[in-house]
Amino acid sequence: MANLTSKLDAIFNPKSIAVVGASTKPGTVGNDLLANLVAPKDGKPFVGEVYPINPKADEIFGKKVYKTVGDVPENIDLAVLCLNAKFVLDTVEQCKAKGIKGLVIISAGFKESGKEGAELEKQLTEKVCSAGIPLIGPNCLGVINPYGNMNASFAAKSALKGRLGFVSQSGAFCTSVLDYAESRQIGFSKFVSFGNKADVSEIDLLEYLADDPETKAIAFYLESIGNAKQFIEAASKTFWEKGKPILCIKSGRSAEGAKAVSSHTGSLAGGDAEYQAIFKQSGVQRVDTISELFDLAAFYTTQPLPKGPRLAIITNAGGPGIMATDAAIAAGLKLARLEETTEQKLKENPLIPEAAALHNPVDVIGDAHSDRYQIATEIVMSDPNVDLGVIVLTPQSMTDSDNCGKILPDVIKKIGKPVVGAFMGVKQVADGVKNLIDQGVPNYAFPEDAVKSLAAAVKLVEMKSQTDREYVEYQDVDAEAAKKVIDGYLSDSPEKYLTQAEARPLFEAYKLPLLKSGVAKSADEAAEIVSGIGSKVVMKVMSADVKHKFDAGGVLLNVEGADGARKGYDQIYANIAKNVPGANIDSILIEQMALEGDEVIVGCNRGGLGPLMMFGLGGTFVELFKDVQFRLAPMWKTTAEEMVRSIKSFKKLDGFRGTPKRDVAAIIDVILRTSAMVVNHPEIAEFDVNPLIVHAEGKGASVADSRVMLRKK
Amino acid sequence: MANLTSKLDAIFNPKSIAVVGASTKPGTVGNDLLANLVAPKDGKPFVGEVYPINPKADEIFGKKVYKTVGDVPENIDLAVLCLNAKFVLDTVEQCKAKGIKGLVIISAGFKESGKEGAELEKQLTEKVCSAGIPLIGPNCLGVINPYGNMNASFAAKSALKGRLGFVSQSGAFCTSVLDYAESRQIGFSKFVSFGNKADVSEIDLLEYLADDPETKAIAFYLESIGNAKQFIEAASKTFWEKGKPILCIKSGRSAEGAKAVSSHTGSLAGGDAEYQAIFKQSGVQRVDTISELFDLAAFYTTQPLPKGPRLAIITNAGGPGIMATDAAIAAGLKLARLEETTEQKLKENPLIPEAAALHNPVDVIGDAHSDRYQIATEIVMSDPNVDLGVIVLTPQSMTDSDNCGKILPDVIKKIGKPVVGAFMGVKQVADGVKNLIDQGVPNYAFPEDAVKSLAAAVKLVEMKSQTDREYVEYQDVDAEAAKKVIDGYLSDSPEKYLTQAEARPLFEAYKLPLLKSGVAKSADEAAEIVSGIGSKVVMKVMSADVKHKFDAGGVLLNVEGADGARKGYDQIYANIAKNVPGANIDSILIEQMALEGDEVIVGCNRGGLGPLMMFGLGGTFVELFKDVQFRLAPMWKTTAEEMVRSIKSFKKLDGFRGTPKRDVAAIIDVILRTSAMVVNHPEIAEFDVNPLIVHAEGKGASVADSRVMLRKK
Repeated sequence: MANLTSKLDAIFNPKSIAVVGASTKPGTVGNDLLANLVAPKDGKPFVGEVYPINPKADEIFGKKVYKTVGDVPENIDLAVLCLNAKFVLDTVEQCKAKGIKGLVIISAGFKESGKEGAELEKQLTEKVCSAGIPLIGPNCLGVINPYGNMNASFAAKSALKGRLGFVSQSGAFCTSVLDYAESRQIGFSKFVSFGNKADVSEIDLLEYLADDPETKAIAFYLESIGNAKQFIEAASKTFWEKGKPILCIKSGRSAEGAKAVSSHTGSLAGGDAEYQAIFKQSGVQRVDTISELFDLAAFYTTQPLPKGPRLAIITNAGGPGIMATDAAIAAGLKLARLEETTEQKLKENPLIPEAAALHNPVDVIGDAHSDRYQIATEIVMSDPNVDLGVIVLTPQSMTDSDNCGKILPDVIKKIGKPVVGAFMGVKQVADGVKNLIDQGVPNYAFPEDAVKSLAAAVKLVEMKSQTDREYVEYQDVDAEAAKKVIDGYLSDSPEKYLTQAEARPLFEAYKLPLLKSGVAKSADEAAEIVSGIGSKVVMKVMSADVKHKFDAGGVLLNVEGADGARKGYDQIYANIAKNVPGANIDSILIEQMALEGDEVIVGCNRGGLGPLMMFGLGGTFVELFKDVQFRLAPMWKTTAEEMVRSIKSFKKLDGFRGTPKRDVAAIIDVILRTSAMVVNHPEIAEFDVNPLIVHAEGKGASVADSRVMLRKK
Repeated sequence: MANLTSKLDAIFNPKSIAVVGASTKPGTVGNDLLANLVAPKDGKPFVGEVYPINPKADEIFGKKVYKTVGDVPENIDLAVLCLNAKFVLDTVEQCKAKGIKGLVIISAGFKESGKEGAELEKQLTEKVCSAGIPLIGPNCLGVINPYGNMNASFAAKSALKGRLGFVSQSGAFCTSVLDYAESRQIGFSKFVSFGNKADVSEIDLLEYLADDPETKAIAFYLESIGNAKQFIEAASKTFWEKGKPILCIKSGRSAEGAKAVSSHTGSLAGGDAEYQAIFKQSGVQRVDTISELFDLAAFYTTQPLPKGPRLAIITNAGGPGIMATDAAIAAGLKLARLEETTEQKLKENPLIPEAAALHNPVDVIGDAHSDRYQIATEIVMSDPNVDLGVIVLTPQSMTDSDNCGKILPDVIKKIGKPVVGAFMGVKQVADGVKNLIDQGVPNYAFPEDAVKSLAAAVKLVEMKSQTDREYVEYQDVDAEAAKKVIDGYLSDSPEKYLTQAEARPLFEAYKLPLLKSGVAKSADEAAEIVSGIGSKVVMKVMSADVKHKFDAGGVLLNVEGADGARKGYDQIYANIAKNVPGANIDSILIEQMALEGDEVIVGCNRGGLGPLMMFGLGGTFVELFKDVQFRLAPMWKTTAEEMVRSIKSFKKLDGFRGTPKRDVAAIIDVILRTSAMVVNHPEIAEFDVNPLIVHAEGKGASVADSRVMLRKK
């Protein structure tokens, strides 16, 4: 794929483009697309050569038309195909013959249209792969690179030049997105509608944009992800190593939505838990709405990332200051506590009136001019206790918002901390807002939205701090032994459900913290086993004749020591003789009793995207609150840590109400060992360790019960 | 107050207005305000007479200026004061002498400015109250009534004519709000900035707008509420009886925000739990952001309320259809399941192409013209399984969005169900959006926002279904006896903490379900008590000499019947004699043992706005998840029911995992009885019934433990 990525330059930065299916008829895709390249309504024409291809036309928009790509006398880098699907394969053949280096296929009529189309798409994929020509599409809107004035799409408008790489699996809403982004003055580095992804996938595009110098942040609209592990690796490299934030709308979140996805694109949508896991593991920030996407993109493409969560608010009105405060606290930010010297500096400054509020939120009051905003911003944002800021401005009679927009960006740049505007309103502050944005400071119509975006940036930085992304290699694991156990169970059945006792050898191979146990056929054996275990045990009669072990006196709890074991052994025999006369006793099962602790669950099942690990607290309330976390295996150690700490009830494990802190490291170890287990053995279809009893810090954890479902692959 | 309300017409619908402090100097409040009335930049001048008042000017904007209100030869209905605070009291005196019927005081320099200002405001309030002249302000932006072209404010722009009554405690952001509302084509019936509310309060304005025929829905920005009970009663009358939805932003939600409120307006902000309670109890829909406020207002002022939660989505693109579905499910809506005949009708219609998706979301696909949208909307919205709809439109090459906007409102009106547009984008769909809104169909730039607003409307309707708003009168309560108990405890101390035993007579007076108990000094007495209780009891030794009752054998559980009681009595005596020789036994305490059940908490403490009742499940996890609900006492029975059902873990009480349904009616009874108790006895500063054990349905509940804090009033 890395190979493919380097080839994508032919698509994004071609010197020449052939438009195959260019049309003379206004209102058709073939006409619109050509117009966007050679005679755009809203910008300059493409910087390179454009060759319209159409066997029946001579000239369109003043350009000579060629009958086939083969007829073009010059080299062609990119061919954009917007002709009937049935001509596509032949045309691709001609492109190959011509030595074309990249393809964008706009045409519909492939996988999305049914069985025949799917077959056609399969042939298309094979053809371009074997030819080594990268293909975007089919069934897409096209590709825009504002840096070469290249609008190789049939969108009704082009993209402003900017720093956001945008990749969409839906073509239809691209025009709305471009329209909306323009209204907010948000520009793009690359804008890609990639349709059915017959060849180039979201992962290829991600890798390309990760290296693209024009791109500072990346935004996706996705309906499916093809390969979870590759996506996680590509995204985390982009985010953690290249420092580019990634935003994603993944639709089909609800079961109903997912149904609509599969009828829409024909792709198999994974359950949402899988996607939640993918985004958490890869540092991708998931958003639910387009406006939220651009709220964050406006920030990530212009401002530095914050160093911490301490917010300063500068405002010329109390009400919006309070609303900003409320929104900040609700979103997890902290209100910065200004140093005394900062308040002193504000107080002493002749531009700051006596009536101003010098505590954060700093209220420069209603008659503030731009000079007062300037000095207040300088003083407040320079405070070492401030990590990030929002400048709230309501247009009052004295307010020169246009000048504020002119002056403030310089101040902000000099201080180097992230600051955004909340110049409130629309027309009244339009000039001021334009001035802000032109100089790289995003603005939000309301302080609530401004603050939410800042809070999201702080969360992103917290994700970024999870630096150690290494898979743990367990040397003490015996995968071969485990494989033998599994093969044994599956030797005469395609599927096998394992009880805890049956799962034991499998778990032993992965060194899970099983309770010790043994089987005694004499009082001496019992004594030996119990001595070996070295802590309290439960003794249970093993007998086909004893149905109700407890009632028959066949179970003894809290047995200790060799003497206790001998007495217990005899006691059980006596009890059974009395209560179930004539019963045949096979042996006595001896199991270590777990130490005191909290019950948690570690489990796994497999969806379309890989083994999906689950973690949560045990008990009724967890079912009530659905307080569980999912991550895909394999996972890094930091992912497992983050997974455990992400449950809402984590504080229950962290020394809650006087109970000791629990051994979180032991939970993480179980998660990672079982992750390794399910990755190594695809036959493990599902398992639950429920409960895993987690003891006090340093005392480990114990598998108290478990079940495993094996299924032949 | 009702009296005051009728007087407010002098402020909102005056025939004549005096502007006291009208100024010749552009850029001053006195000049801007006058201009807004007689020479507005963005509309027609006020329909009535306007008299500028200024001792030093002769003419402003071509109007003759009078030196005082007394010099005006005609009657004046409303005086708007925008002069220095120190002249306000004298001017009010002159207004009174002139017979002026209403006052709006713009001037700042009152409560918000410190102690002296607060004193001045006190005098102002006394003066207008004794004169019977209603006053809005001081320290406000003014009042706008678009229906008389009356912009008696110094906002830089006026309000469009519409159906939303808007009331704001912050003046500063009114201009932004007007600006934003205009950009969304949202109009107002009345627009009020009411500042320090020295006289006219949010409750008066609510009552006025409830009766105002121009007002269809009401929106508040509030920083405080003066009287919770009055607000709840006024709001619920407006909502439940007059059918007008009420929206509210209440800022100061966070502790930090509340701090900013009190420094801002000088009013004491209640804790947020109190406000949450007020809004829940009164049917007010609380929102957090200004954009959300107008998203909902646009709906409530134009569309009928939905009959149910079943949503139909009509779209010309798959992706946005999925996003609408996801947002709908996340917001609690249901995707309507269309009848077969509906799908058949769509299928048979020649305008609907074969490739269209006929299941909900109905995809009329990318080449849909307005005629296809029209027929699809008619057919789908007529389906009896559909309660409400959203029409998603992405501007594609064939889309005639302006015509869609023209045609669809008629279809929607005819069917009579609430439908909104999600014509996506800005400029590309501007004409279509304008056409929609002009004909009373709100539009949202993205389906997510459209669907959220629809979901909010469904929640509002659910609130509306809580029809029975009656206070329960308990005839069996003995408030006098309770008062005697309280007075007794407080006779020699200003504060007294009561244990469960001490609280018993108080709780008995309110007929709370206490466990039965008695004290026995002989085995016969014990037999009699236990027979009387009629179920299992615990017997406990009462002796100053026995420190560890349990260890000494001084506690017996599960004692039953007269015989059991006698045996138990003797047994305890024997045990104590053996284990604590020489101990003096005072008596044996006999307490009924609670039936099996779930533990819940009912409690109360008092904030600034009244007794705040709390309800939640007992146990560690509730503390972990903060899953409690608050409501103010007194409350209606429906409020108590809704309170109990509102905790997230309610299903634990509702027959969870095979446990029997709990006696919810018994919990409600305890909440209402204790509500009555705290209303009747202000000396009850706090109490907790923790746990209240709630048994299976029909078996009641038992107060297992409790504490009460009394404090002299």
